[in-house]
Amino acid sequence: MRVSVIGGGVVSEPVESLAETVGRELAQRGHTVVCGGLGGVMEAACRGAKDAGGTTFGILPGEDRADANEFIDHAIVTGLGHARNALVVLNGDAVVAIDGAGGTLSEIGFGRVFDRPIAGLRTQQVGSLDRFKSCETAVEAVEFVEAEASGATSE
Amino acid sequence: MRVSVIGGGVVSEPVESLAETVGRELAQRGHTVVCGGLGGVMEAACRGAKDAGGTTFGILPGEDRADANEFIDHAIVTGLGHARNALVVLNGDAVVAIDGAGGTLSEIGFGRVFDRPIAGLRTQQVGSLDRFKSCETAVEAVEFVEAEASGATSE
Amino acid sequence: MRVSVIGGGVVSEPVESLAETVGRELAQRGHTVVCGGLGGVMEAACRGAKDAGGTTFGILPGEDRADANEFIDHAIVTGLGHARNALVVLNGDAVVAIDGAGGTLSEIGFGRVFDRPIAGLRTQQVGSLDRFKSCETAVEAVEFVEAEASGATSE
Amino acid sequence: MRVSVIGGGVVSEPVESLAETVGRELAQRGHTVVCGGLGGVMEAACRGAKDAGGTTFGILPGEDRADANEFIDHAIVTGLGHARNALVVLNGDAVVAIDGAGGTLSEIGFGRVFDRPIAGLRTQQVGSLDRFKSCETAVEAVEFVEAEASGATSE
Repeated sequence: MRVSVIGGGVVSEPVESLAETVGRELAQRGHTVVCGGLGGVMEAACRGAKDAGGTTFGILPGEDRADANEFIDHAIVTGLGHARNALVVLNGDAVVAIDGAGGTLSEIGFGRVFDRPIAGLRTQQVGSLDRFKSCETAVEAVEFVEAEASGATSE
Repeated sequence: MRVSVIGGGVVSEPVESLAETVGRELAQRGHTVVCGGLGGVMEAACRGAKDAGGTTFGILPGEDRADANEFIDHAIVTGLGHARNALVVLNGDAVVAIDGAGGTLSEIGFGRVFDRPIAGLRTQQVGSLDRFKSCETAVEAVEFVEAEASGATSE
Repeated sequence: MRVSVIGGGVVSEPVESLAETVGRELAQRGHTVVCGGLGGVMEAACRGAKDAGGTTFGILPGEDRADANEFIDHAIVTGLGHARNALVVLNGDAVVAIDGAGGTLSEIGFGRVFDRPIAGLRTQQVGSLDRFKSCETAVEAVEFVEAEASGATSE
Repeated sequence: MRVSVIGGGVVSEPVESLAETVGRELAQRGHTVVCGGLGGVMEAACRGAKDAGGTTFGILPGEDRADANEFIDHAIVTGLGHARNALVVLNGDAVVAIDGAGGTLSEIGFGRVFDRPIAGLRTQQVGSLDRFKSCETAVEAVEFVEAEASGATSE
């Protein structure tokens, strides 16, 4: 299935490392990574996914495919600015949220709007939210979204 | 200034009453209400604003202006579906969030992305968030966004 | 009713003058001008409308209301870039197209998609197009869209 | 490079056959087909591309990947309705327009906005337009966009 990995564009080294592990774990299990195409969590998750032979999509806010980080296989440009956050979530069957601020919060909100299961790792605290689970490890996060989105078709 | 009032489309009577008070309070102080144009919190806030002689904008997800609730002065159609949430926030100088679920959470996130002050009333718990204040009353909420967005121009 | 006036952002003096006449004519007949909010045809049409005591909306590509020309009563920001062209057309009951290039052509296309009558003045040649009429004068253009959109409600 | 193939969603058999030939020709030369993901010209072009071992993207107006025709490799959902037309054009390095009505006209307009070369086949007459060439055959259309977009990088 496709999993949207969302999170901060500029993050600490431990968060990057966590995102990379999430990307690798997803790819090893045959899932595709969808993200916002830029740096930080997005880039680290894609690096991990490519490292494990996976496939990555980057849905960019701007109009230039060259804005995508180097681990994006398929860059999709939107020119929509921050409104593209809706598309990042919509194009995954589940969401893993790692760290992040306002943009990530908007995407967690869209995760609920579009009824995607969401695993949170060191992310925005959001009270109790349907189909949202705060997780401790990359494996726990991936296993949660796998279990919750079990009906999702492969791409 | 313009204030985006966001919240659930289907809400309890006490929440409606609170939203109506927020709308009335905003209008009495000369502010314009911007909202998503539909029912629940959106409609109640507009009813309050019109009751006090204010002005209201509804930024709709669909393509038909007739979808707007009856208290909308200026209906703007987008045809963008849920991505229009970004526009609801962008068109206010500040945000008052009342109750609500995923859509409201996405808008609180956009409030941070676009650096709007946000007053929360019985809304989604979102941990600590910059320029966000959880308020107890309509007056407290309106006074918070007035103080925080003091540089905002009138429409 | 609302009429979307579309056209080039940088135009010659005769085209500006024509756009101003269209805006004045629309306002004198009680119609509201909707446009893209920027310069050229958009600004001239709004100047004409305001001159005749009308009302104007500007639906902007960017995120800053201050981008609107000085004759806009109600600036709506979208942050969507050129995709906002769809919204400019969607928010009118009819379209008057004056001069213009690619952006105007995209809006004429959306006029057909959303089934709006379109009057063209010195604009992009578009072959035969349903509900499109190439007109010679501002009055002819306004009378065409009035006749064609006669069922449109006032705002 | 990526080429956006645009055109009617419901078309005659000869137009479908032409679209299929365009898709096949593009794929044989190593290009990727981008389209709106639905039927008619979009489906036929993708069928041709897959027949020749090419790759296809479908950028859909709705929220469900299952709306994509069966020849789409990578379905991207937008939920933006007709505003997604901007994204269809933006994601190609060049455009081939085949037949079509208003939607196609909006996309030809965006082709000019985003400065893409456009080859037209039996399409909307659009007067003289910069970097637009009305072509007679699929090969002529493909060769025109190849020559004009020669600087485009591969995906």
